Amino acid sequence: MKNILLLGAGRSASSLIAYLLQHAPTENWHIRIGDIVVNHLQPIVDDLPYAEAIVFDVHNDAQREAEVKQADLVISLLPAVFHIEVAKECLKQEKHLITASYVTPAFLELHTEAQAKNLTILMESGLDPGIDHMSAMAAIHHIKAKGGKLTSFKSYCGGLVAPESDTNPWNYKFTWNPRNVVLAGQGSAKYIQNGEYKYIPYHQLFARTEVIYVEGYGNFEGYANRDSLSYREPYDLLHIPTMLRGTLRKPGYCAAWNVFVQLGLTDDSYTLEGSENMTYRSYLEAFLPPATPGQTIAQRIASYLTIDEQGDEMQKLAWLDLFTEKPVELAGATPAQVLEKILKEKWQLAPGDKDMIVMQHLFEYELAGKKHELTSSLVVKGDDEVHTAMAKTVGLPVAILAKLLLQGKISHRGVVIPIHPELYEPVLEELKSYGVNFVERDREVRS
Amino acid sequence: MKNILLLGAGRSASSLIAYLLQHAPTENWHIRIGDIVVNHLQPIVDDLPYAEAIVFDVHNDAQREAEVKQADLVISLLPAVFHIEVAKECLKQEKHLITASYVTPAFLELHTEAQAKNLTILMESGLDPGIDHMSAMAAIHHIKAKGGKLTSFKSYCGGLVAPESDTNPWNYKFTWNPRNVVLAGQGSAKYIQNGEYKYIPYHQLFARTEVIYVEGYGNFEGYANRDSLSYREPYDLLHIPTMLRGTLRKPGYCAAWNVFVQLGLTDDSYTLEGSENMTYRSYLEAFLPPATPGQTIAQRIASYLTIDEQGDEMQKLAWLDLFTEKPVELAGATPAQVLEKILKEKWQLAPGDKDMIVMQHLFEYELAGKKHELTSSLVVKGDDEVHTAMAKTVGLPVAILAKLLLQGKISHRGVVIPIHPELYEPVLEELKSYGVNFVERDREVRS
Repeated sequence: MKNILLLGAGRSASSLIAYLLQHAPTENWHIRIGDIVVNHLQPIVDDLPYAEAIVFDVHNDAQREAEVKQADLVISLLPAVFHIEVAKECLKQEKHLITASYVTPAFLELHTEAQAKNLTILMESGLDPGIDHMSAMAAIHHIKAKGGKLTSFKSYCGGLVAPESDTNPWNYKFTWNPRNVVLAGQGSAKYIQNGEYKYIPYHQLFARTEVIYVEGYGNFEGYANRDSLSYREPYDLLHIPTMLRGTLRKPGYCAAWNVFVQLGLTDDSYTLEGSENMTYRSYLEAFLPPATPGQTIAQRIASYLTIDEQGDEMQKLAWLDLFTEKPVELAGATPAQVLEKILKEKWQLAPGDKDMIVMQHLFEYELAGKKHELTSSLVVKGDDEVHTAMAKTVGLPVAILAKLLLQGKISHRGVVIPIHPELYEPVLEELKSYGVNFVERDREVRS
Repeated sequence: MKNILLLGAGRSASSLIAYLLQHAPTENWHIRIGDIVVNHLQPIVDDLPYAEAIVFDVHNDAQREAEVKQADLVISLLPAVFHIEVAKECLKQEKHLITASYVTPAFLELHTEAQAKNLTILMESGLDPGIDHMSAMAAIHHIKAKGGKLTSFKSYCGGLVAPESDTNPWNYKFTWNPRNVVLAGQGSAKYIQNGEYKYIPYHQLFARTEVIYVEGYGNFEGYANRDSLSYREPYDLLHIPTMLRGTLRKPGYCAAWNVFVQLGLTDDSYTLEGSENMTYRSYLEAFLPPATPGQTIAQRIASYLTIDEQGDEMQKLAWLDLFTEKPVELAGATPAQVLEKILKEKWQLAPGDKDMIVMQHLFEYELAGKKHELTSSLVVKGDDEVHTAMAKTVGLPVAILAKLLLQGKISHRGVVIPIHPELYEPVLEELKSYGVNFVERDREVRS
């Protein structure tokens, strides 16, 4: 019997838990699921001899030590900041670890010791990062294997709402951590285009979007992620002239979001005076230049930011009730925290709502003197507001990799991300049976 | 005899040193001037029995201890980060200290001990902060004494170039630390207007200027400083409806500087790839969206930022050679560091150039049912590129306060800023004899 310790049973863990429970009898697994609150899990595990839910406090050193000791493999879906303590415990007790989070410098320091102890710390194994690596590397290896020379690689991903549940003018609802959506893009974005490094400051980011077409779903808009370049080395694309990673939204979202950025509403670096007494309108007012008598607030925003008073952006703002005296009711809040609270009320998934993951890789390569364009696109819809596409696409690759690791089918040791055929081939193959399936289109283009 | 230890003999110390040396014989002072390089001081002090220049390394604990021990009063014009160590040594050895720098939280922690030991740590005693406090408090106390009720207080200061030395289209040259000028305004500005808090994000700061008129010198433009509100308490203006502190430039400067901000050139948070191989033009290029064939770089900037291709801003950029292939020659540099290097070449004071300090306070108050507007304005010009107005206005108040303190005429103890009549009255009076003289205009306005 193999013991799996799963830490973190939040929003994105439902598909992972379902997969583990489904495979436990045939794989001979025993599963302990730990989180700070596990009431919602009790009905699921109560009748299962091979699963338990336990109250787990990551700050309790003794408990962390005791739980890791019993496990053969630890899976952590805890908030990313807590992973490093879990990883150190795993190293100490010589256990494998899988997470869906980014490799940080602190993790890189564990690489040599993990290798020496014959352990695998498998990171970036969810959706983005995760499925993006796997699908991109499958395409890159395929192009290279047939002798193609890559000249451009752009990759976009977005957690969106499915067309049938798309009921608001923003064409967006929260399907993961709202705070991360509000703070998205802060800092400077960096990419490379035709061999030249390019930098986009935050206050220009949402004005510099690219149109991305996905067959059957129409147009999206993509904005650049903070760092598009750090994967050139692991992807073995060090000399590629163009490389960009970005985030997808429905057309029009970025122009309206840019209004928030331009006003300063996404700032998380200071607290507003008297935020507890603010209304939506007075919150907005605090960021506007002094009023000209007789102007409406919409007219003032329009003239301040040179946008259309009757336009699409202004309608999106109005739909959020931003021009009303609705109370904010949040003390000691930063501008970003107030914005998050306003959006959370409006952008939550309703019962039955389906979310939608969209990912697209765009490659350009030369083969036998001809230029080619290859797109590899993925669309996954959720079943409902709990069994989301986000939970599937984050949880299933982690779960499948856990199975492969316990079956002894993964030979890579140390801190590893799923860029190797040994990892991505079986995962991408099994994901197809869950409807997670990339569609490729390759066409020759005139030079 | 009283021993004065002056630490820091850089750019802004010339007037301070001259004052100390001039008054040493009559005041019976002995002066030791310490800095990491003091060659330039030797010719000045060599023949004076009451003054010495010594090589002083602030990181040398033993030397710091020994030097402070010999002193009755320490004056520090070192870079602000070094003050706290000096202050702690002064406390330990029970010596008074004067600096021109801001009171930081670390200094506030020393207040009680300094009071208990009957010591004065006199901070913010230069120009801005310094003369701004003194002149503002003189006016505020005057208005209050005659029964006036303050409703608005705005205060602007700028270190500029005198009209007769104003030879470039920016109407600006560096008269103090260039790095601070390049990074000025980063973060969010905060002020209060008609009882409402207002916030300006950095990327809007240079577009939200106010016109400030100074008699005899015409119009200037002012942008808001980061925090306009922290002096409400020390100034005893806690309930004033409008308060703003800002920085002055010549008209047109801010719109052109805003081009740098909008492009992202003032970012100091990351280093540019291959900055050592950049030219001015390729540096600019790195921040521009992809080119449309046939467009000049000026056309691209114009269409990206919606400014006039032939306009004033573009002429200012062209004058800096930004559109040329001049090499940057700076390795591992941030965008802000490259910009600083470019500006330093162009904005330096030439031999004989005169700088100019402009300060203006604008008060509104009610008295006997009438509304009044009071402006208090200061213009000081330098003698040449070494004996600058900046050196005078930073150094002289420090020097005069040093004299008052050694004469036993300052009774305030602890960490003190010059907001008390005991301090500002004699300083403002003596400054007049050096041409540092505020002009007041009070007029009744119709409600």
